[in-house]
Amino acid sequence: GAAPEGGDPSSEDPWQDDEYFGSYGTLRLHLEMLSDRSRTEAYRQVVASNSASLKNKVVMDLGCGTGIISLFCAQLAQPSAVYAVEASSMVEHTRQLVKQNGCEEVVTVLQGRAEELELPEQVDILVSEWMGNCLLFEFMVESVLLARDRWLRDGGVMWPSSAALTLVPCQADSYYSEKMAFWERPYGLDFTPLQPLAQQEFFTKPKFSHLIDPEDCLSVPCDVIRLNMYTVQVRDLEEVKGEFQFSVAKPGVFHGFTAWFTVQFESLETGGATVELNTGPNSDPTHWKQTLFMLDTPTPVNAGDSIHGNVILRRNPVWRRHMTVTLHWKINSSTDNCQVGTKHFPMWR
Amino acid sequence: GAAPEGGDPSSEDPWQDDEYFGSYGTLRLHLEMLSDRSRTEAYRQVVASNSASLKNKVVMDLGCGTGIISLFCAQLAQPSAVYAVEASSMVEHTRQLVKQNGCEEVVTVLQGRAEELELPEQVDILVSEWMGNCLLFEFMVESVLLARDRWLRDGGVMWPSSAALTLVPCQADSYYSEKMAFWERPYGLDFTPLQPLAQQEFFTKPKFSHLIDPEDCLSVPCDVIRLNMYTVQVRDLEEVKGEFQFSVAKPGVFHGFTAWFTVQFESLETGGATVELNTGPNSDPTHWKQTLFMLDTPTPVNAGDSIHGNVILRRNPVWRRHMTVTLHWKINSSTDNCQVGTKHFPMWR
Ligand SMILES: [Ca+2]
Ligand SMILES: [Ca+2]
Repeated sequence: GAAPEGGDPSSEDPWQDDEYFGSYGTLRLHLEMLSDRSRTEAYRQVVASNSASLKNKVVMDLGCGTGIISLFCAQLAQPSAVYAVEASSMVEHTRQLVKQNGCEEVVTVLQGRAEELELPEQVDILVSEWMGNCLLFEFMVESVLLARDRWLRDGGVMWPSSAALTLVPCQADSYYSEKMAFWERPYGLDFTPLQPLAQQEFFTKPKFSHLIDPEDCLSVPCDVIRLNMYTVQVRDLEEVKGEFQFSVAKPGVFHGFTAWFTVQFESLETGGATVELNTGPNSDPTHWKQTLFMLDTPTPVNAGDSIHGNVILRRNPVWRRHMTVTLHWKINSSTDNCQVGTKHFPMWR
Repeated sequence: GAAPEGGDPSSEDPWQDDEYFGSYGTLRLHLEMLSDRSRTEAYRQVVASNSASLKNKVVMDLGCGTGIISLFCAQLAQPSAVYAVEASSMVEHTRQLVKQNGCEEVVTVLQGRAEELELPEQVDILVSEWMGNCLLFEFMVESVLLARDRWLRDGGVMWPSSAALTLVPCQADSYYSEKMAFWERPYGLDFTPLQPLAQQEFFTKPKFSHLIDPEDCLSVPCDVIRLNMYTVQVRDLEEVKGEFQFSVAKPGVFHGFTAWFTVQFESLETGGATVELNTGPNSDPTHWKQTLFMLDTPTPVNAGDSIHGNVILRRNPVWRRHMTVTLHWKINSSTDNCQVGTKHFPMWR
């Protein structure tokens, strides 16, 4: 969700933990995540398809929320212990749910932040649902990496094991019409003086919760960033950069870029099948939906045009859960001269 | 939208004007209102169908926002003057739009609250779009009544001229399933310990932005409150009460009550047609949609059962834009004994 604007960092927590963990102390977000069947069934599938190998293993479920993943582990497999860790006040209810489902022998619920975590033993598997909009937003991944470095045994397994951010140049005609073209002639009047305000208000930040129609993708999508969850370091998150090279597949209007992520869960067995959770437009919609980055000016493009450039995710040096996404692009078309552009999208500060 | 919870009234403005007028200083709400064709076309229709009678009249458009109603007056009729009054910072843009559309000779844009308003003359017509959820929420109507008492000439016309709040007992099966039944067996687990929390979080306050399917109305709706915009007094708004008597038309599950409003605009000509804006389920959806009041326990009902009782809208004595809606009901069925219930719904404090 949107964080409040402005504010004085000296008097505020740059992690905004009261706000962040506070929102996870109410049911609304947990219901949204649990109701997301693609997401929740992916984790269930990971546990179910690895149930034999999970026997006698020690699992940590970081940011467990209602404890659903820990309960899957306890009910579908026979781990020796599951440590379900949650920083928000939801944890009281998590304990109740573990009891209600008869899992209290296996699942230990611990309240606290990853940074302050104390466990009686190292773990074989660190599972977590840490992904945010554009994969990294809210940077819960930092807590996962800290927990990994401290508590995952050598040779232990990370779930997810890898992650990718995918980008595609796209049309967004109805969004553009609704927010920008609308002012041209509403009810026979000329409201164009409001267009600069509309651009500022609707196109400066990315649009979360966009569901892109696959028909609006102007090209085959491209993975621009990949994270190996075993090797990525917290310091690497300060600036993450990727390149793209798209070939426009059909004539259309280039309104912006749409981004989404995929994560992969490797099997505990050598040669076992990898489970993937894909939040893109060709999979069932998830609660993350996709993220739309609107450019300031729509550009007509033709089949065969190339759109290349790069994307940089720069973590906000003050507000540690926020970042700015910078897009640089160059359009090479057979007919026109090339066009270049750069736009910075704060998410959210 | 939802206002922040809690807070210390002694250090805060009980009118929350910074928040209230601040939200109208951005485009988002204005776009939502302008994009609502039923709403905006109703006002346009009122002006268009009265254009002959508006000649040489003086109009006040209170809370004019982008100035759309004033622009309709200037473009579709020939009033001698239109005073467009707006308290939010949108007013700078309103001035620009008036110029852009060549209406600056007729439309004078004034920044300020209704209470502090100074006009050079009394007005013949006071037009305003002051309606909120459940008609009264946010109590902008108070500003309209203050402006009426001070600036409307004897015999002047109020647009809207009257208003009604309508109620119907209803089913809300999918909302109930999504928020409450969900916890019964998600992914094969027992999450019922979260149901009291869900009730507290999702059913304590009314649900705004509910679109009720006419099929889910268990009875013919009933107007429970009517306001005559010429005679209603600010003090009358402290407690507004209405009675209802519904006869259940078909078997179903009584989940709660749905409320919406209608407003009427009388013609300036004797015998001229009244324009009505109806925000109910049998009209095109508006940006207000409908408001759902969920009871704590669903009750099966049968055709012929009677549901009677009353509704009280009590304005919050501290937070002047808020109110509590209290519903008392009694179900008389041919088969069971009668059931009675009472529930208080804060909107929002
Ligand atoms: Ca998440
Ligand atoms: Ca309104």
